[in-house]
Amino acid sequence: MIEKLSDEARSAALSGLPDWTHDAERDAITRQFRFADFSEAFAFMTRAALLAEKMDHHPEWFNVYNKVEVTLITHDCDGLSERDVAMAKAMDGFA
Amino acid sequence: MIEKLSDEARSAALSGLPDWTHDAERDAITRQFRFADFSEAFAFMTRAALLAEKMDHHPEWFNVYNKVEVTLITHDCDGLSERDVAMAKAMDGFA
Repeated sequence: MIEKLSDEARSAALSGLPDWTHDAERDAITRQFRFADFSEAFAFMTRAALLAEKMDHHPEWFNVYNKVEVTLITHDCDGLSERDVAMAKAMDGFA
Repeated sequence: MIEKLSDEARSAALSGLPDWTHDAERDAITRQFRFADFSEAFAFMTRAALLAEKMDHHPEWFNVYNKVEVTLITHDCDGLSERDVAMAKAMDGFA
């Protein structure tokens, strides 16, 4: 079972993810990425997809042309876990 | 300029796309695809992305794990065009 972040751990994690917004209702984080075009956006999605499959931790995401809207949440614990923080940091690195 | 489908052409096209729903308000079509897992879902998205880039016609899509929700519309004519019909048929073939 994956553990949900404590309030303290969540606050610390969010301060390290300034481009992400905390959705308090779902206890999820969201970020909108913008790229030059679809090719760049889908290249980003492909890198993230490979990591998601490796981590067995998958994003909720919406894409239209150069925009990718990502929501990260850990369904197993119905809120944020370390996995979401790791995935968010990796996505920031890919973008 | 890409032309919007006439009412007759749209009806004919929709009858050939039984798994798609017409959103009359936007004059768009939508379909939800379901796969065995994320790997299959993203493989589908990758094939569709390559075609989208080749056609210069890009879907609006949302993915979570094994589900892909697709909306097709031609922004240039603010409604359905032949491009959407071609993309929908290709996606049906990929799935």
